[in-house]
Amino acid sequence: MSSAEFLSALSNLIGTRYVLQARQDIEPFCLDMRSRYLGQPLAVALPGTRAEVAELARLAQRFCVPLVPQGGNTSTCGAATPDASGRALVVGLRRLDRTIEVDAANNSMTLEAGVTLARAQQIAEEADRLFPLSLASEGSCQIGGNLATNAGGLAVLRYGTMRDLALGLEVVLPDGRVLNQLSGLRKDTSGLDLKHLFIGSEGQLGLITAATLKLFPRPRARATALVGVADAQTAIDWLGALRDRFADRLTTFEMMSADCLTLLRDYQGDKVPFIAPWTLLIELSDSDGQQALESALVEWLAEREMVDGVIAQSEGERLALWQLREDMSETQKRRGPSIKHDIGVPSSAIPAFLAQAGLALEQAFPGCSIMAFGHAGDGNLHYNVSFTRPRNADLFDDEERVNRIVYDVVYRLNGTLAAEHGIGQLKTHWLEAYKDPLALSLMRSLKTVLDPNGLMNPGKWLSGE
Amino acid sequence: MSSAEFLSALSNLIGTRYVLQARQDIEPFCLDMRSRYLGQPLAVALPGTRAEVAELARLAQRFCVPLVPQGGNTSTCGAATPDASGRALVVGLRRLDRTIEVDAANNSMTLEAGVTLARAQQIAEEADRLFPLSLASEGSCQIGGNLATNAGGLAVLRYGTMRDLALGLEVVLPDGRVLNQLSGLRKDTSGLDLKHLFIGSEGQLGLITAATLKLFPRPRARATALVGVADAQTAIDWLGALRDRFADRLTTFEMMSADCLTLLRDYQGDKVPFIAPWTLLIELSDSDGQQALESALVEWLAEREMVDGVIAQSEGERLALWQLREDMSETQKRRGPSIKHDIGVPSSAIPAFLAQAGLALEQAFPGCSIMAFGHAGDGNLHYNVSFTRPRNADLFDDEERVNRIVYDVVYRLNGTLAAEHGIGQLKTHWLEAYKDPLALSLMRSLKTVLDPNGLMNPGKWLSGE
Repeated sequence: MSSAEFLSALSNLIGTRYVLQARQDIEPFCLDMRSRYLGQPLAVALPGTRAEVAELARLAQRFCVPLVPQGGNTSTCGAATPDASGRALVVGLRRLDRTIEVDAANNSMTLEAGVTLARAQQIAEEADRLFPLSLASEGSCQIGGNLATNAGGLAVLRYGTMRDLALGLEVVLPDGRVLNQLSGLRKDTSGLDLKHLFIGSEGQLGLITAATLKLFPRPRARATALVGVADAQTAIDWLGALRDRFADRLTTFEMMSADCLTLLRDYQGDKVPFIAPWTLLIELSDSDGQQALESALVEWLAEREMVDGVIAQSEGERLALWQLREDMSETQKRRGPSIKHDIGVPSSAIPAFLAQAGLALEQAFPGCSIMAFGHAGDGNLHYNVSFTRPRNADLFDDEERVNRIVYDVVYRLNGTLAAEHGIGQLKTHWLEAYKDPLALSLMRSLKTVLDPNGLMNPGKWLSGE
Repeated sequence: MSSAEFLSALSNLIGTRYVLQARQDIEPFCLDMRSRYLGQPLAVALPGTRAEVAELARLAQRFCVPLVPQGGNTSTCGAATPDASGRALVVGLRRLDRTIEVDAANNSMTLEAGVTLARAQQIAEEADRLFPLSLASEGSCQIGGNLATNAGGLAVLRYGTMRDLALGLEVVLPDGRVLNQLSGLRKDTSGLDLKHLFIGSEGQLGLITAATLKLFPRPRARATALVGVADAQTAIDWLGALRDRFADRLTTFEMMSADCLTLLRDYQGDKVPFIAPWTLLIELSDSDGQQALESALVEWLAEREMVDGVIAQSEGERLALWQLREDMSETQKRRGPSIKHDIGVPSSAIPAFLAQAGLALEQAFPGCSIMAFGHAGDGNLHYNVSFTRPRNADLFDDEERVNRIVYDVVYRLNGTLAAEHGIGQLKTHWLEAYKDPLALSLMRSLKTVLDPNGLMNPGKWLSGE
């Protein structure tokens, strides 16, 4: 059974125009977003329905063709990029972009996997509801990819990650059987909850084709402040105090180091209102009561010691404060490459992490630069290291050593080396190094049950050595 | 290898006094809470540490002794009751009752599995935090059992089920290996999230020995009302409107039919303030602002059409309103047996469920009694049927037919036959009848990976035919 036969059968199944083989057509599917991994697939398939996905999986089984599911191709760790063997079929889900159901009264919606995150947010808004997942690539990334990664982003503190937002899934198993676990239920104790196998599995166990997602009331009031505090411990004390005072109204608690703000000022000038040892972006939201919410935040802040602070007085000012936070990644890129981490620790351990990792890196690489910023409310920091040598030369020669130093501290503090970006290809060997071997071996046993022929996104972390 | 040898080795391991064999000692472990299942174990073991649980599991593997984990023995469906073979060892977890860590700044606590739910609530309170799981048997049930059942209860609308409240687990696998997934992290994309395999597995995949649980700020304001509305659709419309207006402040939305209130009045007289077609127990809670919260609820209700209503003016009145809801189960028992259901549907489908199931039951059993009450905010109703024949005679002869009628409607509306009570022994054949066969067969495949010798809580729903 040849590749040609397979491609011909595939073309018959989904239509020749949806089986991409020309170099310029498949190129966008071969390179990951950070341009670290360039794969070479057999072809790219763009099935249009769940039934086609199921038939495609059956066909792939028959011809032993590996499948690499791909959403918006925005993985930061090469999770959706095929290997270079030329054997795998990339399965782009973007044509599965239908709204199956919006049940506003149940606060749920069921969408196909290829709907972009931005579109999902819009569908919710059209039903006067909020779908709260929000992240930098929301214009391109897709619901299916968000689920496969268990994406996090900017609103996890209040609403949880994609895992928490998923009520049910529909998954095409590697053998083409369709596991329909779409469900609008909040409570169900009729058996194991199988959806959790697929959430965060990075396409290695099956192809997610649809999902039922939670909706929320739309916030109608927001109060936003950018505040400087003296040290990281104060920041974490504030996090506790804010939650205590405002409960779930606390929607955002982001933290940026002085070096981050200095860098932003270098590129953006006086858009940066002040520089403090640590700068917090705090946002409260509520279903009602704009004035009361703003006053409450002002009052709360007035009782605290801060280095400096700005409260947004208009939607424009609010967006400008957010822009600073959102510009961090891009601004950093302009300064040159960095060794990036997406670490998580219990939020109570953030000060210890910063102190211990900072000290260890400074000892190993005197004068190195560390940009620490991120979702402190979730215990998740982006922690990017550069200038380990003068003029940032040969930075990546130090990557292994830097990672080892950072992850040693992370695991001493019961943290994770991948809080929201996943493992993909980038971190497989680190997962091997730090993850409990029993846990990893169990995961791989589960893989053999669901994908006995190892055809789903092979060569990633579930495939084993 | 004989039972005597096993018991002797077990006694050496955990101490003779913790291996119960005398009839009067093991009796409390043999009968389920609803007195439907009477088992006969080989013995009851009460290990004192995780290490002892692990050694015990290894020993059981060697001697091929089935294990039945048991917490507070409060399952409503016989999930923790051994079979009558006299072969299984009941493993009571109650001596594992230590607090491992309370991390108030991370809003998490790590407890051993044998801590009772009431004690867990208290531990949280001592740290000025809330552990929100709350249910009728909280004085006896244990954290481990709550996890194994994925318990729900009275605060799911705002805080989620036990699955949502668990950050991490420690599990002794059937072969004695310890899977340590204790974690205070809110975000972790480093591999599959294995804890979800064990949550809701009813002791069939391993022995949960500890858990890290989420904590929340303690509510400091509450507004509670008992309100009568004209029909179920109005109730569900209110649910949406309340969420829209009060977002996560809406903590409780319970619903009781007129028949429920009439029954309560029969036994409790004028403690029942009014009888309406449907009575709602509504509670808002917030971190602050008692007066504002009460006024907002009063104002909101004033704008609505209601049949009757009472707002609690004091903590005493508040507890009295709650008592009515909590007395439902007991009061019903005094009237005689009923065929109980713990159904869930999308909350938007509750009116359709009530109409369709009510009609079908009335056609099949003219004049039968239906008591419908429960967690409408979660789409979960307790739906209890009796008097299918005059004087409630031979009620259980109609059980199969009644269940079939109810579950047919439930599944037509994409619901579940077990929203929060689990499957246990009571509902295995109903699970077989209504659950997607592919899902069920996948669950059983997972069981063969984790428990290849089938020693964990055998004869329940994961064991298969």
